[in-house]
Amino acid sequence: MDNRAAVMTGIEEIEIQDRPLAEPGPRETVVRIESVGVCGSDTAYYLYGRIGGWVVDGPIILGHEVAGQVEVVGSEVTRVQPGDRVAIEPGTPDRDCDQCRAGNYHLCPDLKFFATPPYDGALVECLVIDERNLFVLPDELSYDQGALLEPLSVGIWACRRAGLQPGDDVLITGAGPVGLVAAAAARAFGAASVTITDISDFRLELARSMGFIAESGAHPSEQTFDVLLECSGARGALADGLRRLRPAGRAAMVGNPKDAEVPLPLAELMPKELTLSWVHRYNNTWPLAIALVASGRVDVDPLITHHFPLEQTADALTLGRRVTDSVKAIVHPQQ
Amino acid sequence: MDNRAAVMTGIEEIEIQDRPLAEPGPRETVVRIESVGVCGSDTAYYLYGRIGGWVVDGPIILGHEVAGQVEVVGSEVTRVQPGDRVAIEPGTPDRDCDQCRAGNYHLCPDLKFFATPPYDGALVECLVIDERNLFVLPDELSYDQGALLEPLSVGIWACRRAGLQPGDDVLITGAGPVGLVAAAAARAFGAASVTITDISDFRLELARSMGFIAESGAHPSEQTFDVLLECSGARGALADGLRRLRPAGRAAMVGNPKDAEVPLPLAELMPKELTLSWVHRYNNTWPLAIALVASGRVDVDPLITHHFPLEQTADALTLGRRVTDSVKAIVHPQQ
Amino acid sequence: MDNRAAVMTGIEEIEIQDRPLAEPGPRETVVRIESVGVCGSDTAYYLYGRIGGWVVDGPIILGHEVAGQVEVVGSEVTRVQPGDRVAIEPGTPDRDCDQCRAGNYHLCPDLKFFATPPYDGALVECLVIDERNLFVLPDELSYDQGALLEPLSVGIWACRRAGLQPGDDVLITGAGPVGLVAAAAARAFGAASVTITDISDFRLELARSMGFIAESGAHPSEQTFDVLLECSGARGALADGLRRLRPAGRAAMVGNPKDAEVPLPLAELMPKELTLSWVHRYNNTWPLAIALVASGRVDVDPLITHHFPLEQTADALTLGRRVTDSVKAIVHPQQ
Amino acid sequence: MDNRAAVMTGIEEIEIQDRPLAEPGPRETVVRIESVGVCGSDTAYYLYGRIGGWVVDGPIILGHEVAGQVEVVGSEVTRVQPGDRVAIEPGTPDRDCDQCRAGNYHLCPDLKFFATPPYDGALVECLVIDERNLFVLPDELSYDQGALLEPLSVGIWACRRAGLQPGDDVLITGAGPVGLVAAAAARAFGAASVTITDISDFRLELARSMGFIAESGAHPSEQTFDVLLECSGARGALADGLRRLRPAGRAAMVGNPKDAEVPLPLAELMPKELTLSWVHRYNNTWPLAIALVASGRVDVDPLITHHFPLEQTADALTLGRRVTDSVKAIVHPQQ
Repeated sequence: MDNRAAVMTGIEEIEIQDRPLAEPGPRETVVRIESVGVCGSDTAYYLYGRIGGWVVDGPIILGHEVAGQVEVVGSEVTRVQPGDRVAIEPGTPDRDCDQCRAGNYHLCPDLKFFATPPYDGALVECLVIDERNLFVLPDELSYDQGALLEPLSVGIWACRRAGLQPGDDVLITGAGPVGLVAAAAARAFGAASVTITDISDFRLELARSMGFIAESGAHPSEQTFDVLLECSGARGALADGLRRLRPAGRAAMVGNPKDAEVPLPLAELMPKELTLSWVHRYNNTWPLAIALVASGRVDVDPLITHHFPLEQTADALTLGRRVTDSVKAIVHPQQ
Repeated sequence: MDNRAAVMTGIEEIEIQDRPLAEPGPRETVVRIESVGVCGSDTAYYLYGRIGGWVVDGPIILGHEVAGQVEVVGSEVTRVQPGDRVAIEPGTPDRDCDQCRAGNYHLCPDLKFFATPPYDGALVECLVIDERNLFVLPDELSYDQGALLEPLSVGIWACRRAGLQPGDDVLITGAGPVGLVAAAAARAFGAASVTITDISDFRLELARSMGFIAESGAHPSEQTFDVLLECSGARGALADGLRRLRPAGRAAMVGNPKDAEVPLPLAELMPKELTLSWVHRYNNTWPLAIALVASGRVDVDPLITHHFPLEQTADALTLGRRVTDSVKAIVHPQQ
Repeated sequence: MDNRAAVMTGIEEIEIQDRPLAEPGPRETVVRIESVGVCGSDTAYYLYGRIGGWVVDGPIILGHEVAGQVEVVGSEVTRVQPGDRVAIEPGTPDRDCDQCRAGNYHLCPDLKFFATPPYDGALVECLVIDERNLFVLPDELSYDQGALLEPLSVGIWACRRAGLQPGDDVLITGAGPVGLVAAAAARAFGAASVTITDISDFRLELARSMGFIAESGAHPSEQTFDVLLECSGARGALADGLRRLRPAGRAAMVGNPKDAEVPLPLAELMPKELTLSWVHRYNNTWPLAIALVASGRVDVDPLITHHFPLEQTADALTLGRRVTDSVKAIVHPQQ
Repeated sequence: MDNRAAVMTGIEEIEIQDRPLAEPGPRETVVRIESVGVCGSDTAYYLYGRIGGWVVDGPIILGHEVAGQVEVVGSEVTRVQPGDRVAIEPGTPDRDCDQCRAGNYHLCPDLKFFATPPYDGALVECLVIDERNLFVLPDELSYDQGALLEPLSVGIWACRRAGLQPGDDVLITGAGPVGLVAAAAARAFGAASVTITDISDFRLELARSMGFIAESGAHPSEQTFDVLLECSGARGALADGLRRLRPAGRAAMVGNPKDAEVPLPLAELMPKELTLSWVHRYNNTWPLAIALVASGRVDVDPLITHHFPLEQTADALTLGRRVTDSVKAIVHPQQ
């Protein structure tokens, strides 16, 4: 085969198929994919075929945490050249609508986003992609770190949406990959303290080893916080976290709640005059994500616990179900 | 009696009692109370003896929408002089805590607020009050308008909390007194359009006569909005309103929800990346409220539907239960 | 001639020439131009051939305050249809650069802007223009008012840049067209008071008739302000205005200073901790401008003092030099 | 003598005098002063007797960068207890005026500030001071570091005033004590890069050793920046720095310009639409300053180059004039 791809052909079905490459357009490039992180949303599509209103109704290639090397560039490409090591931002807006015009390109109603039906993702050997989705990696960053710039972007954007200010005491509920990168971002934003809660001892220990205050959800301290980043999606997590905020506290909801409706104690919370911001992906975060990892202010390596070749994509997608002590799996399409 | 007061002595019990005046301190004044608006919270205390965690456990004087005339001033008073017509801001912070220091005096944990247990309100002939709670009324404003600066302050603060910008399309759910003043404030803030929903035809007609777009809750249009001000407290109002917001929309919750827990479709709303801000009273709103009414940009007169002497305070408190076509009752302690 | 244009062929030289229309592309339209306002920058190019770094070095068509009627639409046009009355936003960004991506499309380094060398403006009978530059005028707005949405946009953006909040006391230095629309915008944003200064009695009287406080520059009051909008470009105006701000005051510089360097008393101003924002054109202002004029909250009619047919474009450009009691001239290319 | 103080009795005159301690009031404390940093403003008062409008017209005690140990507490003190090691915030607002009410206590017109005529500073063995000016030092912080929280506060506040965001490229002009702490604060706020300019090789080398990019003012690179913090007060520094900002760049002016009027190329800068914020002291910065130093994210030790006993206060005040390779002198009143 010329260009192997791990194609999801049905619920819990992955096939390796050939996906011939199109000729890149004038502003497009061909990128050889080296590292693709597995996200909880990939796993959700694989196991259930849907996330909210997004429904898989045909073959789809998963994977949206991506780094690789530029192989070919179109005639008008100026941002990159062949040989550049790059991370890929997985969303492409129309650059034209009211949201794009206002700077909210991530809320563009026509956003084409990797591995979100009907758009394919990056679990493939090579990809044709517009140069404007590419960010050159400095020498300090590996491909694996390059792939993790995407979840780190979620953490950065969560901090921005929460209006996190230097000096804030920050509570993060959920020590999964997003909770951990959100914690790293919060510290890099100047948080005075960062506390993470979870129910997994493995993840709490990992959080602790990364320098955060780790707290078992079962035994909350009485501390109050300026900022809450809800990263678990767990039932009750948002309500409990909001209760632990100081007056004028700010919360960002990052974790996708499992239930269609989440009961919140709104009246009880009124006198604190909180602010709650939903978080949907990110906006213009790659340059900062690169700067934070390159300068050592954020270390994403402890999150990377498992590696798989493209042929074992199915194993990578179900890692969390099979192995307790896992955080982030990377698939290497060139292997 | 020297200084008659309408004292709530139990659930649905009001007695006219004498409350001798204390000597005003050096920064205090004596104000002769002319107009006191009745708020839904006054009625709630009168009927149920509590609002959330605030419980009436002894005699209390209600009323916190207040205007009157300065009679006496203490030795160090500089803001007002005898004869000045004034509105009263009903909260007194400690000026000392972290929230006060940050400019959030309305979130001061030691805030003393009229008609909130254990603090008395203003349904009384005369009141001793610190000069810093007083705002001089220009000649254009009547005492009744002066009393309505308090609910107007709630509307102004809701607009500020929602980050309302000139040009926004604004949806207000609930055409009660607070919804109507919020609508008036939104228009004065430069809203491109202001739509109010309610189930009462009387209130919808009133909203329409004030120049707003009035919409029966049963027949919502398909319009989407930039800003939601939830002013009804009605079950489902917040969730429905959030669904009608555009991506990047902003909501402020003003109405006190009747239920302890409010179910919200958080996951469904994720892709719009909304922001929800709780509203608790107001912060530094009297000067603007005065400017808006004095310049004619806000007209609060249509809200004032009924008047009562102090002796009929009980009737004023239950007006809404007895009379459908009512909005705001004013009690006049000098009558 | 098929499509007459008033072409500036040299300093103080205008010739009426034929400019054949190109075929509109799929997202382009042909607009029949009805009203073109004359701006101080048009006059500056006409008299001096340059503004700062922008130098006229060949024939150029002036005019960037424009309204007209859509005659023809390209195959993919969806925003407008033939017969629509429209205002034209005169700048076209590349939609691609960092500034565009961040929502600052008006700071796009590749912005193509009407009547700014080397780009032609709109003093022409018909124009081919991208649909994304068009805003449909509601019935309430005349073409002349449609043309004035451009200077009004400058006033609106100045208010935004200054962080003007409802309740602010606003000082505007300079009662020319921009000062007057800035004043109108400030009032529509909820300013508590709007004071304008100028040295022209005619303009002060006009300001007064529009409902603003007018103050002769020679006799400033002792009032202090929250916000300064410097709209005169006059020597000393910015420094004097900054001195009249309260601590934490905000200033926006709109008027183009005549001198290359402006001396400012920075040290003297330090203890007030002011903020000064430069203003360059505007960002996403047409919808609000339309809403404000259509609702009657902003009245631009008093600014329109003179009208000219296309053949008298030269007279329109030098009106201010010849006639003291003028504010804004409109050229009508169809006459 | 019971309580030695270094009193400035005239230009370039310091006398050690006894200053008997007053009895502390109920919310006051007695603090034994251990470390007092010398600021450029102390030196300016000592050499010239004035800074702008503040004129020394009688004996004054200098020194406002202060740490020590609590010895005695008044009857109502709750923030500290005897034995606590503390830093002192040197300003006391009236907590009552419009600026205090708005959260801008540092702009309070009645602010009493150490070592600013007519208020004495802290070059004294013991001081009576309100508990609200005290911040307990964690064990990690020395008294010298505690004293440097004051200049660090200036750096933190400069970053806040400039709206510094994680990811910004920051230019700091002037590598004196304030420039260096501003650089440290900028990095702690998440700056992507921090470049400092100066004309002193010693200071450039110091900046480099602290991990910043150091650039000789004579040989500026062509880099452009998001944020400028002008910390030198040098002629031309602000104008040159503004020219190096990107469109939409933000500048904060921290250094006190030596000239009464500073010429700025305002027209040339118009198309970039910059924002310039004046910086006057700081607002609510001690908690963050403590967190940054205690966590090792900011290291102020390299700034402390010289130490003096109280008797050599005059030498400390003129250190910069006598010794090129100096940054910050600390006076120890207990020696």
